[in-house]
Amino acid sequence: MIAAARMPWPEAVTVCEVGPRDGFQMEHAFIPTEVKVRLINALSRTGLREIQATSFVHPKAIPQLRDAEEVMARIDRAPGVVYSALVPNERGAERAVAARVDRIDIVVSASDSHSLSNANMTTDEAMARAGRVAALGREAGTDVTIGFATALGCPFEGFLPYARVEALVARAVEECGLARVGIADTVGMANPALVRTTMEALRRRFPAAGFSLHLHNTRGMGLANLLAGCDAGIAHFDASVAGLGGCPYAPGATGNIATEDAVHMLEEMGIATRIRLDALLEVARQVQEAVGHAESAVLRAGTSRMLLGARRDGQTKLGAS
Amino acid sequence: MIAAARMPWPEAVTVCEVGPRDGFQMEHAFIPTEVKVRLINALSRTGLREIQATSFVHPKAIPQLRDAEEVMARIDRAPGVVYSALVPNERGAERAVAARVDRIDIVVSASDSHSLSNANMTTDEAMARAGRVAALGREAGTDVTIGFATALGCPFEGFLPYARVEALVARAVEECGLARVGIADTVGMANPALVRTTMEALRRRFPAAGFSLHLHNTRGMGLANLLAGCDAGIAHFDASVAGLGGCPYAPGATGNIATEDAVHMLEEMGIATRIRLDALLEVARQVQEAVGHAESAVLRAGTSRMLLGARRDGQTKLGAS
Repeated sequence: MIAAARMPWPEAVTVCEVGPRDGFQMEHAFIPTEVKVRLINALSRTGLREIQATSFVHPKAIPQLRDAEEVMARIDRAPGVVYSALVPNERGAERAVAARVDRIDIVVSASDSHSLSNANMTTDEAMARAGRVAALGREAGTDVTIGFATALGCPFEGFLPYARVEALVARAVEECGLARVGIADTVGMANPALVRTTMEALRRRFPAAGFSLHLHNTRGMGLANLLAGCDAGIAHFDASVAGLGGCPYAPGATGNIATEDAVHMLEEMGIATRIRLDALLEVARQVQEAVGHAESAVLRAGTSRMLLGARRDGQTKLGAS
Repeated sequence: MIAAARMPWPEAVTVCEVGPRDGFQMEHAFIPTEVKVRLINALSRTGLREIQATSFVHPKAIPQLRDAEEVMARIDRAPGVVYSALVPNERGAERAVAARVDRIDIVVSASDSHSLSNANMTTDEAMARAGRVAALGREAGTDVTIGFATALGCPFEGFLPYARVEALVARAVEECGLARVGIADTVGMANPALVRTTMEALRRRFPAAGFSLHLHNTRGMGLANLLAGCDAGIAHFDASVAGLGGCPYAPGATGNIATEDAVHMLEEMGIATRIRLDALLEVARQVQEAVGHAESAVLRAGTSRMLLGARRDGQTKLGAS
């Protein structure tokens, strides 16, 4: 085997906080609007520069986010922070524009089975709709991104052929004119080899596009997949405070990678996030209190640096290794 | 920055199961000998080729493993499986040899603070003792390995200078004649950058030595660190069935990387372990039942492949991504 060139890790990465959307929509109970607003405001003060604040889906489809307009109206817009919203269709785009979101995030399922199950249309139909939503955003002067759910694994179809993912990205970039493309491991199936090879190939094929990774920690590989993304030069990751998000296919399983776990690892590796981990951990605690649970290693165990305050007599057993 | 050459991942790796030692010693309650024997026998039938079965420490130091002789006498020795034991001192080595262990595993804390706290002697003194233990093993014709606790992070001293770790390995390899050296992230502080640079440097400096990594998942980085080890060409990892092991410095935190999570990720990446994951998961369930807990993502969520059996109607919400 020939050793390929190793790309240096990015010097800095951007973490997009998706907890208020991907997390809150998975909570059984409706989180009061004032709690959402308080938590989003707190997240705004951690150094995060992108927050997916809500989703303009039909209130009957996701009643947990039926207060999208009110959330957008009531949050304090911190300077330098992009407040985006997930938008499923034209009606959602109109609502999002009216609510003055900074960015519209479209999601399309890369596999037909998941698209039919999730959006009641084929991927091809969803892409046509994405094009219309992108056009609406453009007309309104609002940034638009697209993310491909199940691109790194579909619960019905398994791992998609790379060619299918590439063709979808080509359509997004070349037909819809979208410059930023998310690649999602929606149900936490992906492994680091798949992440690295997929992202390397996509970056080679679309050198001008900005790629982000949306990872779940369902099978414990979330941070390994983040590392694989860094190996491939990806510098944009979604994550969810307190690890909210769940996985509809794996009851009891963890959700998105926890923002604080991702930030902790990146900063420990010397990759800058510009996020203040102590402030983020404080918000994670508030989120945990608000929703009654969390899936976050650092929230549970503390940071590596905090450990250095450990007292010597708290220990210890012969042979601990 | 100049891109370094990327080493191909190992084609196959060996996973050493340390649950019966590192895991069982952390359990508050004594696990009955017959349960230990049953679980070790079950582990022996999964394809695992190395099992650290117990520890010949003083029974008062770790009463949980006071049945070391009985465990070694009663287990079925599966052909091709190496049954090792942790040995802290000369007396332990004599006991281990008498119990016919296949291999003696020595542990020395790389930091003085941890060594003093854990073994009541400096690292230097512990190395001298390790040399005597190694000599005893050699005389008896028993394989000996050494592992350096806290080499990738000490709760008292933080991250050790690489030069200290290298000097200890040099002493182990060149003075004690030990061919296999473990590098441990004892309290789960290490990050992938540290793991990769440390292991690459050690492999360059000691090309004839066999290195293994002992990783904990305390801060969620366990599998990312495993990946970083593979990046550095490491093909030998410790792991603990059901994620047993705990971390004395982080109450409630997870322990060693779970063997089933490690095997799952490696096999998904195309790196052979020769371990049958279905059989291993069945043992992990038995372990979970025996000790009343587990820290294992795959045990909780199922494997990526199992997910493909998921039924379509189990889902799903618009906007899941």
